[in-house]
Amino acid sequence: MSTKYVYLFSEGNAKMRDLLGGKGANLAEMTGLGMPVPQGFTVTTEACTRYYDDGKKIDSAIEAEIFKNVLALEEISGKKFGDNENPMLLAVRSGARASMPGMMDTVLNLGLNDIAVEGLAKRTSNPRFAYDSYRRFIQMFADVVMEVPKSSFEKIIDEMKEEKGIKEDVEFTADCLKEMVVKFKAYFKEQKGFDFPQDPNVQLIEAITAVFRSWDNPRANYYRMMHGIPYSWGTAVNVQIMVFGNTGNKSGSGVAFSRNPATGEKKIYGEYLLNAQGEDVVAGIRTPDPMENLKTTMPEVYNQFVANATKLEQHYKDMQDMEFTIEDGKLFMLQTRNGKRTAAAALRVAVELVEEGMIDKKQAVLMLDPSQLDTLLHPQFDEAALKAAKPIGQGLAASPGAASGRVVFSADDAVEWTGRGETVILTRMETSPEDIAGMDCAAGILTARGGMTSHAAVVARGWGRCCVAGCGDIVLNEEGKFFTLGGKTIKEGDYISINGSTGYVYDESIPTVEAEIGGHFSTIMGWADEFRQLEIRTNADTPEDAATAISFGAKGIGLTRTEHMFFEADRIMPMREMILSTSLEQRKAALDKLLPMQRGDFEGIYEAMQGYPVTIRFLDPPLHEFLPQNDSDIKKLAEEMGITFDQIKNVIDSLHEFNPMMGFRGCRLAVRYPEIAEMQTRAVIEAAINVQGKHPEWNIVPEIMIPLPGEAKEFKFVKDIVVATADKIIKEKGSSLKYMVGTMMEIPRACLTADEVAKEAEFFSFGTNDLTQMTFGFSRDDAGNFLNTYYENKIYETDPFQRLDQTGVGKLVEMAVKLGKEARPELKLGVCGEHGGDPSSIEFFHKVGLAYVSCSPFRVPIARLAAAQSAIRNPR
Amino acid sequence: MSTKYVYLFSEGNAKMRDLLGGKGANLAEMTGLGMPVPQGFTVTTEACTRYYDDGKKIDSAIEAEIFKNVLALEEISGKKFGDNENPMLLAVRSGARASMPGMMDTVLNLGLNDIAVEGLAKRTSNPRFAYDSYRRFIQMFADVVMEVPKSSFEKIIDEMKEEKGIKEDVEFTADCLKEMVVKFKAYFKEQKGFDFPQDPNVQLIEAITAVFRSWDNPRANYYRMMHGIPYSWGTAVNVQIMVFGNTGNKSGSGVAFSRNPATGEKKIYGEYLLNAQGEDVVAGIRTPDPMENLKTTMPEVYNQFVANATKLEQHYKDMQDMEFTIEDGKLFMLQTRNGKRTAAAALRVAVELVEEGMIDKKQAVLMLDPSQLDTLLHPQFDEAALKAAKPIGQGLAASPGAASGRVVFSADDAVEWTGRGETVILTRMETSPEDIAGMDCAAGILTARGGMTSHAAVVARGWGRCCVAGCGDIVLNEEGKFFTLGGKTIKEGDYISINGSTGYVYDESIPTVEAEIGGHFSTIMGWADEFRQLEIRTNADTPEDAATAISFGAKGIGLTRTEHMFFEADRIMPMREMILSTSLEQRKAALDKLLPMQRGDFEGIYEAMQGYPVTIRFLDPPLHEFLPQNDSDIKKLAEEMGITFDQIKNVIDSLHEFNPMMGFRGCRLAVRYPEIAEMQTRAVIEAAINVQGKHPEWNIVPEIMIPLPGEAKEFKFVKDIVVATADKIIKEKGSSLKYMVGTMMEIPRACLTADEVAKEAEFFSFGTNDLTQMTFGFSRDDAGNFLNTYYENKIYETDPFQRLDQTGVGKLVEMAVKLGKEARPELKLGVCGEHGGDPSSIEFFHKVGLAYVSCSPFRVPIARLAAAQSAIRNPR
Repeated sequence: MSTKYVYLFSEGNAKMRDLLGGKGANLAEMTGLGMPVPQGFTVTTEACTRYYDDGKKIDSAIEAEIFKNVLALEEISGKKFGDNENPMLLAVRSGARASMPGMMDTVLNLGLNDIAVEGLAKRTSNPRFAYDSYRRFIQMFADVVMEVPKSSFEKIIDEMKEEKGIKEDVEFTADCLKEMVVKFKAYFKEQKGFDFPQDPNVQLIEAITAVFRSWDNPRANYYRMMHGIPYSWGTAVNVQIMVFGNTGNKSGSGVAFSRNPATGEKKIYGEYLLNAQGEDVVAGIRTPDPMENLKTTMPEVYNQFVANATKLEQHYKDMQDMEFTIEDGKLFMLQTRNGKRTAAAALRVAVELVEEGMIDKKQAVLMLDPSQLDTLLHPQFDEAALKAAKPIGQGLAASPGAASGRVVFSADDAVEWTGRGETVILTRMETSPEDIAGMDCAAGILTARGGMTSHAAVVARGWGRCCVAGCGDIVLNEEGKFFTLGGKTIKEGDYISINGSTGYVYDESIPTVEAEIGGHFSTIMGWADEFRQLEIRTNADTPEDAATAISFGAKGIGLTRTEHMFFEADRIMPMREMILSTSLEQRKAALDKLLPMQRGDFEGIYEAMQGYPVTIRFLDPPLHEFLPQNDSDIKKLAEEMGITFDQIKNVIDSLHEFNPMMGFRGCRLAVRYPEIAEMQTRAVIEAAINVQGKHPEWNIVPEIMIPLPGEAKEFKFVKDIVVATADKIIKEKGSSLKYMVGTMMEIPRACLTADEVAKEAEFFSFGTNDLTQMTFGFSRDDAGNFLNTYYENKIYETDPFQRLDQTGVGKLVEMAVKLGKEARPELKLGVCGEHGGDPSSIEFFHKVGLAYVSCSPFRVPIARLAAAQSAIRNPR
Repeated sequence: MSTKYVYLFSEGNAKMRDLLGGKGANLAEMTGLGMPVPQGFTVTTEACTRYYDDGKKIDSAIEAEIFKNVLALEEISGKKFGDNENPMLLAVRSGARASMPGMMDTVLNLGLNDIAVEGLAKRTSNPRFAYDSYRRFIQMFADVVMEVPKSSFEKIIDEMKEEKGIKEDVEFTADCLKEMVVKFKAYFKEQKGFDFPQDPNVQLIEAITAVFRSWDNPRANYYRMMHGIPYSWGTAVNVQIMVFGNTGNKSGSGVAFSRNPATGEKKIYGEYLLNAQGEDVVAGIRTPDPMENLKTTMPEVYNQFVANATKLEQHYKDMQDMEFTIEDGKLFMLQTRNGKRTAAAALRVAVELVEEGMIDKKQAVLMLDPSQLDTLLHPQFDEAALKAAKPIGQGLAASPGAASGRVVFSADDAVEWTGRGETVILTRMETSPEDIAGMDCAAGILTARGGMTSHAAVVARGWGRCCVAGCGDIVLNEEGKFFTLGGKTIKEGDYISINGSTGYVYDESIPTVEAEIGGHFSTIMGWADEFRQLEIRTNADTPEDAATAISFGAKGIGLTRTEHMFFEADRIMPMREMILSTSLEQRKAALDKLLPMQRGDFEGIYEAMQGYPVTIRFLDPPLHEFLPQNDSDIKKLAEEMGITFDQIKNVIDSLHEFNPMMGFRGCRLAVRYPEIAEMQTRAVIEAAINVQGKHPEWNIVPEIMIPLPGEAKEFKFVKDIVVATADKIIKEKGSSLKYMVGTMMEIPRACLTADEVAKEAEFFSFGTNDLTQMTFGFSRDDAGNFLNTYYENKIYETDPFQRLDQTGVGKLVEMAVKLGKEARPELKLGVCGEHGGDPSSIEFFHKVGLAYVSCSPFRVPIARLAAAQSAIRNPR
């Protein structure tokens, strides 16, 4: 049997969404429910795929199938395509599997030509309406299908207004519009070199082709990339008999929700316009009336609509977003779909639907978009104010939230200005550990360089602070205290606003709205916790981060980066002494200075975590990151340490690396300098013993994580140091402390040989940031030079650093899980890369059987919800 | 049954090499053959492994087993351990599975103590001999077992000589030696705090322990690393009844080969010393006599030895290296093993053994060490002269061979000096494409920086030119034209010598011997070609390289790096123009200039390859490598191109990368700039059509290789450009040329998704250099900072860049082969990383079913031989 590419609405239903698209499937479903839907047919998404496979051509067999269905519509409607008595007019609209509002094209009034327009005039006895429809059709068809811009036609209209002394469109008479049609057609021929197509079948195929084509337009591609919609899905095309909301004052069009999409309140919410087509409601030329008014104006129609809305909500078990048209007093339903809503509304709707008995808790959990919770946890711009603002540039959306304030260009200035009560945005070329204090008091951070893993980005995400990083178009003069961006020059003290969720930068102050977490949030989180099987931990380096994460529901730390502690002002000196040591004794002496500080840090974290598990990763970054970069800083350090400039310079030179990411870092440091691992082990174990002593009710079991091994023997080498040191201390102190030694899986070879590694390691925590970089063979910091081209060409459809690449990197993770569990059935498995906070990745981690995911504190609620959804969708 | 840890010689045989070690197995085999072997037993390699597993302790059960076998030896010999009438003395020697000459320890005369020395004196009626044996034993035992250095005892001897007015050791009387023993024992006690052990059983266990311990000494570890011998093998210990070559002039010791190890000539070759122990022959204090003399001196013994040698050679079917001792006119065989030999001798012996009917061709091929062929292909130092020379430093053995000449410090100087007939060694901080001409005329290249993949190393290997790279201890002053190394200052014009096979640098001229390939070489290569199943290709960028490789037997090019062509003086300018272009038009104009040059290059290569297949890799390195690095060069370029300094500087800045290896390179360039791939396709296809036209008898099928994809769609994107361009040209020219488009597999993700890639790619060529780096997560250039520590700690036992890591990287290769063949059964598979020239890696590639390996021209013979051995050992 050959594939069926065209379905009448009466042949489909809501389950056929993949094939018919969302709009088409719902039109079919409403038809089945007996709703008043103008009939039509859907050309399937498979026809779209065929169109691209066939080299952007609609196959003649599919064309024939379309024409057959046109005949069917003629029969249903009793009208005829292109008829001079009772012409059938069609609307052609796109409809993909996932909603992509405004991304693709629509053509209305299709079927009008020089003959049919007379037929329409006759049938409606309204020549003005007929010719107005015709001129609108020419304009729309030319613009959407033939690439003759709408604006050129608007110019003709303006000329005619002037000529006729007319101000508003409505003043045009039927004859004027007839004249306008002649002018439009002439202009079209002048532009295209051929006549405006008169054959309705030709018009229809061209319009369908245009919709297919629009699937590949830049804004659709961008939208898909942003929302993770695969290119391969294609779009369906809905061809529907036209109904007219613009035939007079007993007609109209509107859009309404079954509940309030901003608040979730259960009450019809929407607006309509009398004597208007649907497009006019959206266009905003006339101000629509709120739905309440319809109750008075056309109570029967209103009641019928409310009944439909209720029926649809109960049918779909979700808040509906509906379009309708009233033609001469008769209500038509043009579309229904689950309505988009704010995060607050989403929570309220979900909870209330459960209370109303319409859905159960699982369904409530499933209907929420975890990513949307972000907006509840960070300040946002006031929506109305944001609409009026225009960005002057865009960087990377490095840490979500919104911030407004006065620009400062150094950490010291940030501290000083906030000290006198100013709100500041710290703007730097890139940040470094020296800037921490300034970053901490800034409302937001903006950097010209650096990627999603730059210092600014990582620190800001940990704090939940708003950050836009790597805004490459900025020309920054830090010393001169100004920057230029988008043609604007911003000086110290000027107001700017940044949006860390979009990356936009604005040269004005935009009011922000504080984050607010209501009761519905807790209700939903409680339900999520009932269902999820993944534990949720957090990545936290300080007691403050840990406390934040606990308040968001984290039940442990999956990653404490010990090096961040060494960047702090009082530690960086002994750290540098350690690196600059020329003998074991010197190095040990420097480490001895670091020991009490590090032990103190760990005590703070254990206190904050109240007995929940804590995974501590040993020193990871290349040593040169701790050394000063420029000559004046080196000079200063040399004086402080009492050694020569050249001595320091030589060490810095010897530590220089061509590819630091693939250099002397991770456990390679501990293999070369075991005394570092000894000191860190001592700090962890002593801290655990101390805090355990104070809180006998807790059961502290330190989890020591060795980073970056590629080989089991390498892991074992460091583990042996840890175990020897730890056991000695535990024995000396007469403690009964238990501890675990595990590893961060972030090198492909470790995954490939995970059976060997698991013989030694008690847990694996997948470091999917580095694993992604090594598996793809590109560094996140350098990929900017080419990744955009890859997205444009659909080579990659999502950012593999945001969403785990399940095909490649995921294969390594699965392999490591399988090999690891075979070698050690009780192996504890988790993930601490940024993917631990990404819903689609969390679903993958659930499926491969990890025990926990760890993410930054502000993503903990998202992870809780995503984990619950994963568990419901994929029972283990 | 409990494990047996000790075997009498009469209990073993040659097949038990893994358990008994090479020496032990052969002693057992000779015993079985009825040869006159002093009897003894072997403590197995498994006992050594147990020793380390048990925390460096010999288990008491194993000790008991040893003592049981001592009793057996007493029975065999009729002597008694520590006896005052007829004491049994033992020799304790190491013997690993693979020969590790001089790497581990030996103790002779064990069993002597204050009592037994008297027994020995009585039995031999030679107190002088007895006390000389005792003092030698104390010295050796103290040094080897107790870590009291031999030299301290030599000092005592010297003092006694002075005291007694004696010049030579032989002048010491028995009484003198007795006195010496007293002094030695006193010194021992002073050093160690306890008496010299008198109990022979204690002596024996201590000596065996010392041998086990010596398995882990630094020089053994280093030797193993150099020769790829696993640490886990352990060593066996041979305990053998002493026979004495030093009891008078009817006694002696010697070492002889069954054939000449330097030339392969079939004639007993060796030397002996009368009245001497084996160690004396090697020590070089007295000059040994050639074996011919023994024929005259002791004809019966000589004839008996020749008969033994012949019998052993026929038994082992290989040239033998034998140690023997004559005790009072009786011949004892102390060791036999397959003799080490020069490459020339190895070839001759193998060919002649076949001619003699002793072995067949397969066995002949198997008995050669492929790596050894290298010395036949490159000049070597004269051996005698080399022995006298002392290196002043060591760098990386970057390209094999030896060279002597006068130092110059710039490429221009190299050209000028060679122009006036001098032989020069070009010494640079690191080389760059600008140095090519100077490198070409230098006899050898020495660099202070850069690794095995640095410009100097890669270029030199391609040319077969000697190169020592990355000699980090050099303090180089290029402008001042001198360097210091090992405390010596070398100025322009001074003679130095470098050995690219060992990395050593000498501050003198050492004569070199030219490479010479004789008839036996061709015979063996012919046999190898009969057996091998892998095709052998070469990595070649120029017609000259290609011609060299063909002369060595390559049957195709597996890798032509197109970028090397762009570094040449006349191409670098248009290349830079291309990179600095700000528009597509500009870039295309620059590429148009490059097209004819590149086409000409390819024509040259096709001509040189005479119809053999050629794989051409498209542009691979990061673009910044083509741009000047320092300000003065940038200024010059700006003037030449008529643009500003800042314009160039900005492009260089924008191309700067944190991790260039993981940056904007490989096919990422072609995805971003498809016009580069278009130009390269045009050059390849047009060149092929042109050369095919001139040589209708050839069948040229270009193989275009896309580097560095990580995803099938990425490969397809570039392939589509290639195919569109190629098909257009072929059609235009009315040609019937066929071509292939394949890929270099060098990113882990490509291997993980090889099924997808193979749907598009017609061949895979594994780029195991990059694949190793990405899989291990370290870059070859940066790993120097820690890899030595890894070798020292046995985390890695061989260099994964020299020998393919079969466990990790190999798993990816296997996976890719399997997935690839499933998706495309006719998929052509090869390797073009440096591992393609490494014998053990070649065996792996044979086993996983590749079609070919590609290596540098000078490794082609090695690859042919290794491939033959692989095929014989692993029939497909």
